[in-house]
Amino acid sequence: MHDLIRQLKETNNTKIVLLVADGLGGLPIEPGGKTELETARTPNLDRLVAEGACGLSLPVAPGITPGSGPGHLGLFGYDPLENDIGRGVLEALGIGVEVGPRDVAIRGNFCTIDAEGRVTDRRAGRIPTETCEALVAKLRQGVRIEEVETLVEPVREYRLVVRFRGEGLGDDVCDTDPLSTGLHTLEPKAGNADSEKTARVAAEFLRQAKQVLRDEHPANFLMMRGFAKFPRIATMEDVYGLKAVAIAVYPMYRGLARLVGMTVVEPGKTLADQMDVTKANWNTYDFFFLHYKYTDSTGEDGAFAKKVEVIEALDAEIPKLTALKPDVLIVTGDHSTPSRMRSHSFHPVPLLLWAPATVRPDLVTEFGERPCLQGGLGQILAKHIMPLALAHAGRLQKFGA
Amino acid sequence: MHDLIRQLKETNNTKIVLLVADGLGGLPIEPGGKTELETARTPNLDRLVAEGACGLSLPVAPGITPGSGPGHLGLFGYDPLENDIGRGVLEALGIGVEVGPRDVAIRGNFCTIDAEGRVTDRRAGRIPTETCEALVAKLRQGVRIEEVETLVEPVREYRLVVRFRGEGLGDDVCDTDPLSTGLHTLEPKAGNADSEKTARVAAEFLRQAKQVLRDEHPANFLMMRGFAKFPRIATMEDVYGLKAVAIAVYPMYRGLARLVGMTVVEPGKTLADQMDVTKANWNTYDFFFLHYKYTDSTGEDGAFAKKVEVIEALDAEIPKLTALKPDVLIVTGDHSTPSRMRSHSFHPVPLLLWAPATVRPDLVTEFGERPCLQGGLGQILAKHIMPLALAHAGRLQKFGA
Repeated sequence: MHDLIRQLKETNNTKIVLLVADGLGGLPIEPGGKTELETARTPNLDRLVAEGACGLSLPVAPGITPGSGPGHLGLFGYDPLENDIGRGVLEALGIGVEVGPRDVAIRGNFCTIDAEGRVTDRRAGRIPTETCEALVAKLRQGVRIEEVETLVEPVREYRLVVRFRGEGLGDDVCDTDPLSTGLHTLEPKAGNADSEKTARVAAEFLRQAKQVLRDEHPANFLMMRGFAKFPRIATMEDVYGLKAVAIAVYPMYRGLARLVGMTVVEPGKTLADQMDVTKANWNTYDFFFLHYKYTDSTGEDGAFAKKVEVIEALDAEIPKLTALKPDVLIVTGDHSTPSRMRSHSFHPVPLLLWAPATVRPDLVTEFGERPCLQGGLGQILAKHIMPLALAHAGRLQKFGA
Repeated sequence: MHDLIRQLKETNNTKIVLLVADGLGGLPIEPGGKTELETARTPNLDRLVAEGACGLSLPVAPGITPGSGPGHLGLFGYDPLENDIGRGVLEALGIGVEVGPRDVAIRGNFCTIDAEGRVTDRRAGRIPTETCEALVAKLRQGVRIEEVETLVEPVREYRLVVRFRGEGLGDDVCDTDPLSTGLHTLEPKAGNADSEKTARVAAEFLRQAKQVLRDEHPANFLMMRGFAKFPRIATMEDVYGLKAVAIAVYPMYRGLARLVGMTVVEPGKTLADQMDVTKANWNTYDFFFLHYKYTDSTGEDGAFAKKVEVIEALDAEIPKLTALKPDVLIVTGDHSTPSRMRSHSFHPVPLLLWAPATVRPDLVTEFGERPCLQGGLGQILAKHIMPLALAHAGRLQKFGA
């Protein structure tokens, strides 16, 4: 599909906005009840639905609950099954650690080992984040690797990220976590010749780390998992011919946007700030990715009423977007996060496409899971949204004569 | 999918009719308004919708606007992305030039070159079609190629078609159009060994053409583009076991039907003639492809009211088809041509399937873009319509035990 789009793409002055309300889709709490989105008063979104077309987005495939990585890749028009982002890279992006083509990113976690080196606690008693930070500071000072540039960053509790930067670093290296207590940690072994250097560097890092941490308790060692390189992924400019900008507050989404070649600008702190930043950059870019986190975090918290509130807060900002007169405005989520489930889910996500010049309106007048079922877009894979957006923006030539 | 169908296909005496109203789908002109099809009074089609099932056809993929070639291949049940028809072949088919397995078809265009051979006008001042015809006559007389049989035909204005017929003619030959003025035309170079002969013949053709045209003005040379062989494509008889006939007035659609092995009969001039021809051939064939052009041409003209009229004219002929008692009747388009856009578009196309013995009716009672959204067929890829038609005709055995 990307080959076809590359071949058909056309440049013009249209503007496309993709507003991702993370975890937008939900569920009723009570049988017969309404979802969060159906409950929320959303007069502005409802007006766009009435003028535009709606449907539901399947992030990956029926029944598949996506993480943020696959969820966003789909929305950016990349097949999330073909473009796998390694765990180490996602962990790094999630805390704002930059990952580039020369890097291997690794998830670390502090653990407890006994005098014989056997793991007694794989999570080091879930040490508090401050302890994690202090131990990371010691590692930065005490571990010296000559062959590559090394970065160590705390994540949360017992988790950290290690990044090696240098030439010839493959990522086919096995995890060192033995997966149960009473066993020795494993050596980082390379699965192919290209990853020998990475394995050697990781082994040396772990050897020194064991020295540095030997008198700590309970976190007297660490394990490495999810060795991952920056994925080979075409940029949105290459595939779509779009100059794309990300206006996202949280590091994970900024990182995911960088993966597909978007420029990442300072978004401010609030959604109102993001709207201002969008306006300030309106003439510089063709494609605007806005990310709104709170529909997901309230869902994760199981806070139905709070999720309704943040949806209403989102709705209130919509007129600022339409005032910019985008040619295409898409509002959807990267997945559902029903507050009833307190987690990401596999349910399709409400999808709204507003494109005044070319949209074929349907009969739906309200933004919600059930109304969207009647929408003109049907239930489509998330990866098909970008081609639709490009088509409505007049950015795809005819295929064949 | 074709492999599966080949394996499951079964022969019987059923009749399938595919009525293609070219460019059928549309858009409202005014916000809140109706589309052309929704506006048209179509009592006969509405009755079939009420008795049958409807939905929407996606010609190629979401967001992709098809030309007539991919649009029809999809309706004939061929994946339009896997069966690409070269530009030269489509141009030839469009003017009724036959293209067979030994042929290479090429789009030509007259151009103007200066004394040094540099292109000064890539379209030779858009000479009138009569001049084109006169120049083609001169080429026919003046150019003599020994190695292959050569055909030259005018298209329109500065455009012509050249066809080489012979053995060993590959089509991997580069365009000779330098794509901007001030440059020399390019030599037709072969991209592989199989195309060396084609390149040599084309070079000789161009050498002689330059002599023939040297005193003309402004069209004193020509360029060649889109070298294309007849695609290797299985016939409908091979894949489906259907004896298929095309009853189409315009050359392009007759040519596309020939590509998939349909017999092409004289259709008369009007839709009423086509109905008579269908009736006259009813006992001879299993599958009837009827093509109706005017839903597209009125859309291309931006003539909303006229498109409504030609839809109503189509509706008036429908009883002649049902009187023949087909087992399966499909009415749809190869793409949308909204008169508001004056062009082909990517919007899904209304789709009606009437099959009295086997259809599962839905709740829709009116043929139109919005009613079809509620239809029992859903939104499906065009290439999935033929398997459905075969199934309703009892022409596909059970898969597996």
